[in-house]
Amino acid sequence: MPFPEVTEKLLAAKKAKGLSFADLEAKVGRDEVWIASVIYRQASASEEEATKIVEAIGADSAFIEPLTECPVKGGLDPLVPTDPLMYRFYEIMQVYGMPVKAVVHEHFGDGIMSAIDFSIDVEREEDPKGDRVKIIMCGKFLPYKKW
Amino acid sequence: MPFPEVTEKLLAAKKAKGLSFADLEAKVGRDEVWIASVIYRQASASEEEATKIVEAIGADSAFIEPLTECPVKGGLDPLVPTDPLMYRFYEIMQVYGMPVKAVVHEHFGDGIMSAIDFSIDVEREEDPKGDRVKIIMCGKFLPYKKW
Amino acid sequence: MPFPEVTEKLLAAKKAKGLSFADLEAKVGRDEVWIASVIYRQASASEEEATKIVEAIGADSAFIEPLTECPVKGGLDPLVPTDPLMYRFYEIMQVYGMPVKAVVHEHFGDGIMSAIDFSIDVEREEDPKGDRVKIIMCGKFLPYKKW
Amino acid sequence: MPFPEVTEKLLAAKKAKGLSFADLEAKVGRDEVWIASVIYRQASASEEEATKIVEAIGADSAFIEPLTECPVKGGLDPLVPTDPLMYRFYEIMQVYGMPVKAVVHEHFGDGIMSAIDFSIDVEREEDPKGDRVKIIMCGKFLPYKKW
Amino acid sequence: MPFPEVTEKLLAAKKAKGLSFADLEAKVGRDEVWIASVIYRQASASEEEATKIVEAIGADSAFIEPLTECPVKGGLDPLVPTDPLMYRFYEIMQVYGMPVKAVVHEHFGDGIMSAIDFSIDVEREEDPKGDRVKIIMCGKFLPYKKW
Amino acid sequence: MPFPEVTEKLLAAKKAKGLSFADLEAKVGRDEVWIASVIYRQASASEEEATKIVEAIGADSAFIEPLTECPVKGGLDPLVPTDPLMYRFYEIMQVYGMPVKAVVHEHFGDGIMSAIDFSIDVEREEDPKGDRVKIIMCGKFLPYKKW
Amino acid sequence: MPFPEVTEKLLAAKKAKGLSFADLEAKVGRDEVWIASVIYRQASASEEEATKIVEAIGADSAFIEPLTECPVKGGLDPLVPTDPLMYRFYEIMQVYGMPVKAVVHEHFGDGIMSAIDFSIDVEREEDPKGDRVKIIMCGKFLPYKKW
Amino acid sequence: MPFPEVTEKLLAAKKAKGLSFADLEAKVGRDEVWIASVIYRQASASEEEATKIVEAIGADSAFIEPLTECPVKGGLDPLVPTDPLMYRFYEIMQVYGMPVKAVVHEHFGDGIMSAIDFSIDVEREEDPKGDRVKIIMCGKFLPYKKW
Amino acid sequence: MPFPEVTEKLLAAKKAKGLSFADLEAKVGRDEVWIASVIYRQASASEEEATKIVEAIGADSAFIEPLTECPVKGGLDPLVPTDPLMYRFYEIMQVYGMPVKAVVHEHFGDGIMSAIDFSIDVEREEDPKGDRVKIIMCGKFLPYKKW
Amino acid sequence: MPFPEVTEKLLAAKKAKGLSFADLEAKVGRDEVWIASVIYRQASASEEEATKIVEAIGADSAFIEPLTECPVKGGLDPLVPTDPLMYRFYEIMQVYGMPVKAVVHEHFGDGIMSAIDFSIDVEREEDPKGDRVKIIMCGKFLPYKKW
Repeated sequence: MPFPEVTEKLLAAKKAKGLSFADLEAKVGRDEVWIASVIYRQASASEEEATKIVEAIGADSAFIEPLTECPVKGGLDPLVPTDPLMYRFYEIMQVYGMPVKAVVHEHFGDGIMSAIDFSIDVEREEDPKGDRVKIIMCGKFLPYKKW
Repeated sequence: MPFPEVTEKLLAAKKAKGLSFADLEAKVGRDEVWIASVIYRQASASEEEATKIVEAIGADSAFIEPLTECPVKGGLDPLVPTDPLMYRFYEIMQVYGMPVKAVVHEHFGDGIMSAIDFSIDVEREEDPKGDRVKIIMCGKFLPYKKW
Repeated sequence: MPFPEVTEKLLAAKKAKGLSFADLEAKVGRDEVWIASVIYRQASASEEEATKIVEAIGADSAFIEPLTECPVKGGLDPLVPTDPLMYRFYEIMQVYGMPVKAVVHEHFGDGIMSAIDFSIDVEREEDPKGDRVKIIMCGKFLPYKKW
Repeated sequence: MPFPEVTEKLLAAKKAKGLSFADLEAKVGRDEVWIASVIYRQASASEEEATKIVEAIGADSAFIEPLTECPVKGGLDPLVPTDPLMYRFYEIMQVYGMPVKAVVHEHFGDGIMSAIDFSIDVEREEDPKGDRVKIIMCGKFLPYKKW
Repeated sequence: MPFPEVTEKLLAAKKAKGLSFADLEAKVGRDEVWIASVIYRQASASEEEATKIVEAIGADSAFIEPLTECPVKGGLDPLVPTDPLMYRFYEIMQVYGMPVKAVVHEHFGDGIMSAIDFSIDVEREEDPKGDRVKIIMCGKFLPYKKW
Repeated sequence: MPFPEVTEKLLAAKKAKGLSFADLEAKVGRDEVWIASVIYRQASASEEEATKIVEAIGADSAFIEPLTECPVKGGLDPLVPTDPLMYRFYEIMQVYGMPVKAVVHEHFGDGIMSAIDFSIDVEREEDPKGDRVKIIMCGKFLPYKKW
Repeated sequence: MPFPEVTEKLLAAKKAKGLSFADLEAKVGRDEVWIASVIYRQASASEEEATKIVEAIGADSAFIEPLTECPVKGGLDPLVPTDPLMYRFYEIMQVYGMPVKAVVHEHFGDGIMSAIDFSIDVEREEDPKGDRVKIIMCGKFLPYKKW
Repeated sequence: MPFPEVTEKLLAAKKAKGLSFADLEAKVGRDEVWIASVIYRQASASEEEATKIVEAIGADSAFIEPLTECPVKGGLDPLVPTDPLMYRFYEIMQVYGMPVKAVVHEHFGDGIMSAIDFSIDVEREEDPKGDRVKIIMCGKFLPYKKW
Repeated sequence: MPFPEVTEKLLAAKKAKGLSFADLEAKVGRDEVWIASVIYRQASASEEEATKIVEAIGADSAFIEPLTECPVKGGLDPLVPTDPLMYRFYEIMQVYGMPVKAVVHEHFGDGIMSAIDFSIDVEREEDPKGDRVKIIMCGKFLPYKKW
Repeated sequence: MPFPEVTEKLLAAKKAKGLSFADLEAKVGRDEVWIASVIYRQASASEEEATKIVEAIGADSAFIEPLTECPVKGGLDPLVPTDPLMYRFYEIMQVYGMPVKAVVHEHFGDGIMSAIDFSIDVEREEDPKGDRVKIIMCGKFLPYKKW
């Protein structure tokens, strides 16, 4: 599953300039995960945001417009991901999905955590026994409508 | 995919007693998601922890021992979950998996977030536009060994 | 994929009493599709709603409580449904999914139609060349959050 | 699953001209979803309709004939779509498919809603709590023939 | 994939009485394949037809009502059937599906052969080199609606 | 699943010349479905037949030899076809496969309808309520050998 | 995938009597693989053959009739078998399938080896470096019919 | 699943020269199925064998070395093959796999027929009722090691 | 995928007696992994070995015979295992399979490591930074036969 | 599933120079399997290591940087590998996975063998009855965290 051409080009330009996503966060004023999502064509930027991203990377302005399109999302991974880092998310869902569901329903009632009105952040938690990756997902609770 | 018998029995006893997982957290001294994982047979408890859980629920002591066994984990959901709440985790992995991978590697190098030396918490974030579900995953970063 | 016991029992009682879902709509004050969803354990009712449904059907009051539980949803059909009526929804998604996506994005921007803050109705449209089934889905537009 | 070349070309020309599908609806005299279906090669147009579409877009007349061919339909999405907007249709089928089937049979008897003698419309329903996407599917009821 | 109980019971009673489906065709006045479809719960009979079938078989009248229900169809075979007789239909679809599609479109335009307003018959064609199985499928041509 | 190059080229030449498969049937002396199968590389022609087909189409004689090769058959459709016309064959197999199997065994004993010593024809059946597509499959009955 | 009850019962009776399939071959006058296929419900016996098998095993005569039914074949293994002995047949098909196809077509033209007018035998080939399993499959060549 | 380039080139050269695999068997001194396996890149030849094959075909000597590489085997067919000739091997495994397993274990004990220390031959068996394809598989019996 | 009854019974008896597989290794004189494989019905024991195992566990002698049968192996895990410990073996195969294949071929030529003439051992490697699990697989190299 | 371009190029250069992975082990000071994993893009090297590998192979220095990137791992094999050597690892997991799990838990408690803090080695064990492939996997035991 190759990346779209615009993704390949922007990642290459970013690497050539030695920029991290954290650098882009500082320049664009949006979270680095969201910016990465725009570049991997999983999210769409406004024209202003797209311009900032492309200029920060120093890429051709022809790449601005493609970042504003509503992409067909998902599909970068196989059905069950084989990459070990990404598989761990699948494993967490398999192992802890049902317990989390039970706890969410007890706290919020019947409904879901939105994956649209949603943010996801990556943080480092320092720990003498080895630093830890902290991933914070935060989505609006959406109760089921009755009609 | 029916739940194991011990799970069915403990959930029924817990409901009959009107206890929430949060109540169990208060009585057992462990996080409610972890306790739910033990009951759904996705995690194993020590004998002391299992005793506390079973006694808090007021269930037969014959259920203590099964909670201490190392379960065959996963498999409660289908390959791609159909339950909307649980599918959202799958969707997040499909949409944000690759961007998160890119950011984690920039911050930590090549390796993974452990799903074993790992915790997952559910919190409510109050918000005037509708409260939000916050899910915090925290796992040790494991760098790839070279040999 | 057998139905849950409560579903089997309520459907049998409903048939024995000669009630249609439209009859239940009249008695319960909720749409017949939603009531069917509660009975098939795809939606959860309040205690008051569940009581009305069970009493309207004339079933044992022991079935009230199970209708209030948050069910594990989906999974009644196989991955691709084989029943011709249900397959048609799959076919519509395969054939018209991408065109509908393009039109929704032009009208609303990047986001989705919620399947949670959502209703679905079945109507008969009379037509001299043969009556038509009208299915109206209506869900809140959820724009993607940026962060 | 890349789009056919004719689709790519017509979408690019349409974008270059700043036309929406609604604009095409006004010019061609057919619903915008149907026009999008023709362009995505999920439906076939008459020569007259194809000419109107291609001329409205201002594309090369060589694209007229391909729009009149009977396409191999479906296959733009994976078996279970990963795009969140399109997945919601799959989720609706999984969650509400069986209840809708039960209600349709009660109203119409044994048979199906045709997906061929069929139309699908997208509308905006204004709502102070957030506008709603309304999708109206309307297909002829086809009773099973006995022989 | 076991058969429904009513199917098992009626097939056993039919065998005990030494009746073929052709015998039932003579007694019920419907084609033997259609009668078999009712018994395998792939089609629904009117009360009158169901009564004739059950009486012809000499089974308990409690089996009449179940034959009138609208069944969840399909699902007796796996996704790709393993039984050699049934696999041949799959093979024919794989090998001749596209050529048949091309020919149907040339003769009828864009649309399908209905599988609902449809009949299927089995005949024996005598042949000195070995008799042949003739299967005749006949469905209404349904042209695609435009809107 | 793109078609082989020879298929693409011959279909384009046939279209350019305005020939239908029925026209080819008249010129080649073989059924139109079989000729389509040769062109889609699902069947192999003799050199004489291939020559007639290629000459009738007016294509380059370099295409004669490829039509005589024994192709790797099937694989033009996905496992479960998404094209509505082709899916109907899959649906017929899912719904009527088991009843047809039962009837065939009653008439012929244990064995199959050959899909090799086999022909398939498409006919139009005129009907005032809408013409019908008639598909006639005819294959030698092959009884199981015992040894 | 459990075996049918008749299979379980006959295998148990055969074991209790200490009979091998080779013993049955001697008593029944049919090849041991074919007899095993009847008992595993992959082939159907005549009443006379079924009587001989059941009597040789010393089982209840109620098992005679079930062995004469035309079974739904296949399905004892998963899609890709996990048992190492049975997987080797899958592996042989994956590795040598295409070369065998090429050679068969060169010798016989376009067609197949029948799996119906077919026998399969197991033999031991003595070899000082370790005895070998010899499996001989022999099926009628069926050339494709043209029409 | 296209063939590797070396396969395509050697098959084309072989055809241009009008050679059958049987001709190659005579020139190379190895069985035709094995030679076909080398050319389809399912087996590896020694340099001497590869030279003989390439010279017999009259192809460029640059193709010698690729035939000596250890290939990634399998994968020319889909999971379940769609080509009728190759599917028959799959069907034989589904229908006769378990009976053959039972017979092999009775004759040899627990273990497998090797698919590595293994040969497969294709023969023609003349028969007045139609010639037969005989496929002889012969692999070393490997008993399970205990430790 | 439930375990066979004999497995459930022997594991329960073993637990009741407080025996580890290492204890059984000491009593039976075979490796603990092999003994576990016999009990999970993945390997077959001689009558003498089965007797020792059953007596060591103190279970009913009726369980001796079932341990000597040649089991249908595999199938305890799903296609891709969800249990994290077992998934790691799948991950190792996905990530390191191709490099290991390349190295094995350089050292041994074309062939495989037998999984039949094979042993697998589990050892603890003490390590001040955390003990390590050592898994040693050892199988006879089987070179491909040419014929 | 073709290899990445950098893999193809480095393998070709390595072959042209006649180097084995064991030769690279001697020159680079890392295990040959790990080096192969870097070249197959399943592991990432430091710049120093990448330089050593590329220089040892005598390839263009432009290939150094790609070897330091964190790759998307896995995906070189299909879901269930078809190559016989690689399938054996899958078979070992299917057959011995559950017994190994049981033994690991008895020795180490609930947790896993890490596939990240992990090494895998290939050794030859000389044996008069045929040399053996020894594969040693060694990963840190990770106990489940409780919280």
